[in-house]
Amino acid sequence: MDAAREAHNREAFRQAVVNTLERRLFYIPSFKIYRGVAGLYDYGPPGCAVKANVLAFWRQHFVLEENMLEVDCPCVTPEVVLKASGHVDKFTDLMVKDEKTGNCYRADHLLKDFCKEKLEKEPNLSDEKKAEFRHVLAVLDDLSAEELGAKLKEYGIVAPDTKNPLSDPYPFNLMFQTSIGPSGTLPGYMRPETAQGIFVNFKDLYYYNGSKLPFAAAQIGQAFRNEISPRQGLLRVREFTLAEIEHFVDPEDKAHPKFSEVAKLEFFMFPREDQVSGRSARRIPIGEAVAQGIVNNETLGYFIGRVYLFLTYLGIDRDRLRFRQHLANEMAHYAADCWDAEIECSYGWIECVGIADRSAYDLRAHTDKSGVPLVAHEKLPEPREVEKLVIAPVKKELGLAFKGNQRMVVEALEAMAEKEALELKATLESKGEAEFHVCTLDRVVTIKSNMVTISKEIKKEHQKVFTPSVIEPSFGIGRIIYCLYEHSFYTRPSKDGDEQLNVFRFPPLVAPIKCTVFPLVQNQQYEEVAKNIARSLTAAGISYKIDITGTSIGKRYARTDELGVPFAITVDSTSSVTVRERDSKQQIRVNVDEVASVIKEVTEGQSTWADALWKYPTHSS
Amino acid sequence: MDAAREAHNREAFRQAVVNTLERRLFYIPSFKIYRGVAGLYDYGPPGCAVKANVLAFWRQHFVLEENMLEVDCPCVTPEVVLKASGHVDKFTDLMVKDEKTGNCYRADHLLKDFCKEKLEKEPNLSDEKKAEFRHVLAVLDDLSAEELGAKLKEYGIVAPDTKNPLSDPYPFNLMFQTSIGPSGTLPGYMRPETAQGIFVNFKDLYYYNGSKLPFAAAQIGQAFRNEISPRQGLLRVREFTLAEIEHFVDPEDKAHPKFSEVAKLEFFMFPREDQVSGRSARRIPIGEAVAQGIVNNETLGYFIGRVYLFLTYLGIDRDRLRFRQHLANEMAHYAADCWDAEIECSYGWIECVGIADRSAYDLRAHTDKSGVPLVAHEKLPEPREVEKLVIAPVKKELGLAFKGNQRMVVEALEAMAEKEALELKATLESKGEAEFHVCTLDRVVTIKSNMVTISKEIKKEHQKVFTPSVIEPSFGIGRIIYCLYEHSFYTRPSKDGDEQLNVFRFPPLVAPIKCTVFPLVQNQQYEEVAKNIARSLTAAGISYKIDITGTSIGKRYARTDELGVPFAITVDSTSSVTVRERDSKQQIRVNVDEVASVIKEVTEGQSTWADALWKYPTHSS
Repeated sequence: MDAAREAHNREAFRQAVVNTLERRLFYIPSFKIYRGVAGLYDYGPPGCAVKANVLAFWRQHFVLEENMLEVDCPCVTPEVVLKASGHVDKFTDLMVKDEKTGNCYRADHLLKDFCKEKLEKEPNLSDEKKAEFRHVLAVLDDLSAEELGAKLKEYGIVAPDTKNPLSDPYPFNLMFQTSIGPSGTLPGYMRPETAQGIFVNFKDLYYYNGSKLPFAAAQIGQAFRNEISPRQGLLRVREFTLAEIEHFVDPEDKAHPKFSEVAKLEFFMFPREDQVSGRSARRIPIGEAVAQGIVNNETLGYFIGRVYLFLTYLGIDRDRLRFRQHLANEMAHYAADCWDAEIECSYGWIECVGIADRSAYDLRAHTDKSGVPLVAHEKLPEPREVEKLVIAPVKKELGLAFKGNQRMVVEALEAMAEKEALELKATLESKGEAEFHVCTLDRVVTIKSNMVTISKEIKKEHQKVFTPSVIEPSFGIGRIIYCLYEHSFYTRPSKDGDEQLNVFRFPPLVAPIKCTVFPLVQNQQYEEVAKNIARSLTAAGISYKIDITGTSIGKRYARTDELGVPFAITVDSTSSVTVRERDSKQQIRVNVDEVASVIKEVTEGQSTWADALWKYPTHSS
Repeated sequence: MDAAREAHNREAFRQAVVNTLERRLFYIPSFKIYRGVAGLYDYGPPGCAVKANVLAFWRQHFVLEENMLEVDCPCVTPEVVLKASGHVDKFTDLMVKDEKTGNCYRADHLLKDFCKEKLEKEPNLSDEKKAEFRHVLAVLDDLSAEELGAKLKEYGIVAPDTKNPLSDPYPFNLMFQTSIGPSGTLPGYMRPETAQGIFVNFKDLYYYNGSKLPFAAAQIGQAFRNEISPRQGLLRVREFTLAEIEHFVDPEDKAHPKFSEVAKLEFFMFPREDQVSGRSARRIPIGEAVAQGIVNNETLGYFIGRVYLFLTYLGIDRDRLRFRQHLANEMAHYAADCWDAEIECSYGWIECVGIADRSAYDLRAHTDKSGVPLVAHEKLPEPREVEKLVIAPVKKELGLAFKGNQRMVVEALEAMAEKEALELKATLESKGEAEFHVCTLDRVVTIKSNMVTISKEIKKEHQKVFTPSVIEPSFGIGRIIYCLYEHSFYTRPSKDGDEQLNVFRFPPLVAPIKCTVFPLVQNQQYEEVAKNIARSLTAAGISYKIDITGTSIGKRYARTDELGVPFAITVDSTSSVTVRERDSKQQIRVNVDEVASVIKEVTEGQSTWADALWKYPTHSS
């Protein structure tokens, strides 16, 4: 199939899915009666239920299973926190403006669209040109503002809506800004991720955990990014739900006690080497990937395995899921290793979970900015000898020389980093005095060799004090849910064959409603039975939908197949009822007073539909 | 006990609760390492679990039980929506500024504190003065900016921190403002409530419900209020979780099919009449309150009853819970009736749930602003004759008279309200012409009697088109949780009697952790058993805490009583274990392989601790 045809099919499939999703209120553009706002979506009743189910399972699979410390921090965040994390300075995209209308575009999107269009729609492109456009697409994320601007000019790219010329690219900060309190003097932002709320609480959480490593904290909550040009429906939005885990670990020991439980799992991995050398993703057992050093450490590998289990339990197709390692140029300078769980959907491969070893970066950044040491202490099995730098200012001499400024000079000397101190020591030894910058005085003073002694001493250490490393699995819940919709959607002919019916094959775990209750015909007896069943379902905590309209049973099945409801109870007698499974359309007969518990068992996983088929009389539709 | 003594005890009790809550990380001030931000709090692990449990129960008790349509809308909201709802213009508090430092205060708080202090701390106040201060406190919420300013001046109230003079009071909008998108031209706010997201979706939700009334939609989510001076810990904060229900109903039929299920419930109610005449709250069966017209209608009464059940199941003390009716002056002009569920805690009676019949106000406001009719249609059993006003502009005459402006004049004539049209008709009949203001032209034109016919006609109507009424129960989740903490907290002497131990008597439904697992002594056998039990608890979906330190079992109990953990499993043999209940300290012996299912049954309500005591051998501690 050629590229254009394939693109067309993808587009048609997506339209079918999205139409169904919007028509059945899985999601809809927010504030629709006011013509909406780009990048903001509401989850309607079935979408909201799917989301609640996915989050409940996330809690069960990660938080409960690993005894994680879950926290819940505000979205409104003061500037100082996001200054420390780097977001105020660096959380930007490069933007260009239509020079006449002022419309804004993401510079990289324009360049990407241009190159893709050339590659897809110009069959006679020279091999040289093809290679050039492919190269641009590959390095797109690395281009500086200047480089991007130069490319836009070179290709003559103009504003897509008006064909007007564009401004040079410049950075636009993606955080929603606001002001906290009535005075207008405390700037704040809506958090762009939930992680910072965990980092700033490290000290308390570490203490709560009995001052023991490793431990993980987790948070589910809203995050906000003021995207320049939201696109791709639920995939790039301005407000979204994140579920993040920060696993704190001794940087010298990243082994994981439960790694053996996932080591044999085998799934598509796409290591850096394979990407660079043009190979495809391949199945590698995660145990081997760690043993061979493809994945940096056991803890990272453990989470990759757990993420694989999480996504496939939800119903993500394992053949359209891969773990892609970040290339060296994609990774933050401090990161030890980083893998994205990417899911293939009609938009291509989409990053849905990032699993990164962020080393000590975040805790160090907040330690520096706040002055509160975010460190762990560990008693050594036996004391060890370490060489330590000792800086001893001679206060008497300093007092004579600097009078009232003595304290500032003493503090500046004591605060020297090791390298600076050793240089000062060398200068004092060779020249007898040295220039020294005291930042709190904002001037340079002269230090003489009798004013300070700098030496290396051997000291006994009884405990190790260190900044833990952080391994961070971060889940974009909306993206996972959208991919799940695509992977779960299929169509099948209606009974009379004259139309195609939509079905979502959600597993019961995910399904927004677990079963329906249909009286076969409209009569009071059947309606009574239906209401009694409904009551017992509510008592059992099973969500259901009751439909007492006289519509044909086939139509009622079709309506709820489209919501992904896995089981339908049809009341066709007063003593027993028919239970029908959505995908196989197989049916069993169950007594009225048993049916709620049968549905509970097959939806909550205590037994399977296959068990039920074996246990109860079956009949075909 | 005199007022001062009582205030002192309340304060001491609160300190004990809050110290425990903060020390055990139920909640902590957000961004503490940066010295925090007033009005922002984090929920630490136990607080986060309590919140998740309360919300899960809310979903079970309201959404699932009533088959409500749950939705999930963004926090970022464009201005137009909040303009329509009235928040942009009216969601304000009156603020005063310290004229020298610029510090901001809520004007009513300063006046309230002044009056309260006078009443509490000046024993020799004259009866006249006492009455005056009490009157000020009673009408505080009704005072205009001018009246408040006059009172502050009269009492000589100055800035509490500096004693500087204060500015006059002026309105400060409590919404966090931001800007949506990169252009800076689309103002937005962080939503101050979740309700608006439901109202703007009314049309889709009504269709989703099969175009049938009544139905309810529900939403759980963050809401934001940029308080001038946050106070009272978790009770007045800048970001909080709301759970809101909007129940849409035919204004002519507010009966509720399930009202009989709650009608016999009896609890403290505080009707408007009783408040005005100085009586106390009294127990009234909700059925009687509706029958006597104290509560406006069955649907409102049904929700009051359901809210009572919800709060008391959580563990709110029924003797410190009352439903207080809004006074006429507290209620919005459009509201038909409004009751607050108030819970008494150390801060006094706190509004935790508002249950209001908001009539058609919100849907009408959005209909007017958006131009999209948010209405319901109902087929009448048989057609009915109605008198309808028909306005028929004579386009030919209007065209001759107004040329290019004809369309605007026609539209203005057609848009007249009934009263205005009848007045115009009368004037035309008596004088032959009339002055008429055309707002789209912004001028007055002369209409002659040949230009329009206005008549009343009898028409047959086959369906009724109307704006539904909205009954809105709105839950402040953080406030409910804080009151629950106070109601659940008690102290008891340690075994040796030399210290007081803290306990939270959370019901299992609410408890952050359902049980603990303690090996009695540190040995490998017991630890193995403990780990096996832990695994079976995880499989059963029960949250637990395992403590394998060698600390005395009494200390381990005390530590977890303080977290409100209802059950402790002590591993004191390899075949059976001791299970201890928190409040009674009663103990039973259970086989190792049965213990997870016993804990599951007593925590999930399939059986009670009393059942377990009867079934298993007991022994005292």
